[in-house]
Amino acid sequence: MGCFFVDGVRFVKQAVDHGARIERLVTSRPLLKNPLGQKLARRLRRGGTPWLQIDPEVFRAVAAAREPQGIGAVVRQRWTSLRRVRPGEGLCWVAVEHVRSPGNLGTILRTCDAVGAAGLICLDGGVDPYDPTTVRASMGAIFSQRLVRCTAERLQRWARRHECLVVGASPGAARRYDRIRFDCPTVLVFGSERKGLSPAAEQLCDFSVRIPMLGSADSLNLGVAASLLLYEVLRKRRYTSAPGSR
Amino acid sequence: MGCFFVDGVRFVKQAVDHGARIERLVTSRPLLKNPLGQKLARRLRRGGTPWLQIDPEVFRAVAAAREPQGIGAVVRQRWTSLRRVRPGEGLCWVAVEHVRSPGNLGTILRTCDAVGAAGLICLDGGVDPYDPTTVRASMGAIFSQRLVRCTAERLQRWARRHECLVVGASPGAARRYDRIRFDCPTVLVFGSERKGLSPAAEQLCDFSVRIPMLGSADSLNLGVAASLLLYEVLRKRRYTSAPGSR
Repeated sequence: MGCFFVDGVRFVKQAVDHGARIERLVTSRPLLKNPLGQKLARRLRRGGTPWLQIDPEVFRAVAAAREPQGIGAVVRQRWTSLRRVRPGEGLCWVAVEHVRSPGNLGTILRTCDAVGAAGLICLDGGVDPYDPTTVRASMGAIFSQRLVRCTAERLQRWARRHECLVVGASPGAARRYDRIRFDCPTVLVFGSERKGLSPAAEQLCDFSVRIPMLGSADSLNLGVAASLLLYEVLRKRRYTSAPGSR
Repeated sequence: MGCFFVDGVRFVKQAVDHGARIERLVTSRPLLKNPLGQKLARRLRRGGTPWLQIDPEVFRAVAAAREPQGIGAVVRQRWTSLRRVRPGEGLCWVAVEHVRSPGNLGTILRTCDAVGAAGLICLDGGVDPYDPTTVRASMGAIFSQRLVRCTAERLQRWARRHECLVVGASPGAARRYDRIRFDCPTVLVFGSERKGLSPAAEQLCDFSVRIPMLGSADSLNLGVAASLLLYEVLRKRRYTSAPGSR
């Protein structure tokens, strides 16, 4: 259970708003000109958060933002055990395996948040959801989404015990994504950008779906494919149960 | 009308397959081990394409791929005049304005290809579609999609003359994207990642649509938002006209 660093008023505020455990507030006074950032720093210091002042040069070196705002936080990672979560929480769960691009993983988290998904299940391999690029691309969803780490075997046992649908995404699948009803608790599974689902992940799935493609390309960007599937689940779930819902 | 450089067997082959004008084949013999790449290079040289051999060090320096395959091409950019295109071509058109991330623009092009869109209309400002990162993220769609460059005013006149629907994407819009019929020739308009549609672009649009969001995030990744809208047009167009179509 390590820590990760976020910087920028927006990200530090999201960490606070979502009750993340902030191990240390990091500021650089010459850079901290944003009034909201100054207020946030004061509030955290008064609340007893340990505080580190650093030089602008050092802050610029550790910050992910191009124009650092002089406020950052060392935040404790939060992992949840699979035993403590249920398939019916949120809209659905997303499981990923061997995802290589931190940007893609961040985009998946961001869309998970947008559709009200429960969280991300990290299977073997692939990029760390607490990678700085992932955290940034998630636009704060790293704090709202629950994170679980487990093997494909454990996830399969969990899915069977709770009778939930496990659906993989694969360009070669026979079923089309928009033909599925998604009317029970669901886990969507995505493999690596290059190779798709591994044999272990395929075995875990009740079936796979494909997103139709008409052009010369043989696949979609992984973040896009995951987002299309997540919005399809949202469409089927919410719109079916409450057609007039906005 | 400049040129751009692509490298890798896949990209050079796509350039050839789509009839792009290759100004110069660039190879580095010690790196060119892929049999398909060797065959492609031979074919181009025999066909009379000017050819440049360079050192592996130089090739690595200019290549975008992490593991360069020793084959690249200097390709002429292809821009089409707005006067020479029609709204009804392909599934729809996409117009972008002030898009800042080359990766996002490449993802938009990639999905454009996947849904059979006609091409991309580049309004004022924003990243060049021939930026190396965009070209790579497009996964070859840079060759299949038509590219047009014009002002918002010219696009508006063109859209009115041809009676086509111009739909902007905006998180604050009143209409939901999945409630639109998209039953006539359409141009989808996307603004910058941070600021969305400019006033000039908003004026160009017949109306704007939003993609519902349930979580704490206030927006989606731009490539994701564009892809959701493109797939919505595909759904309404193809599925309405041919419900049994795959």
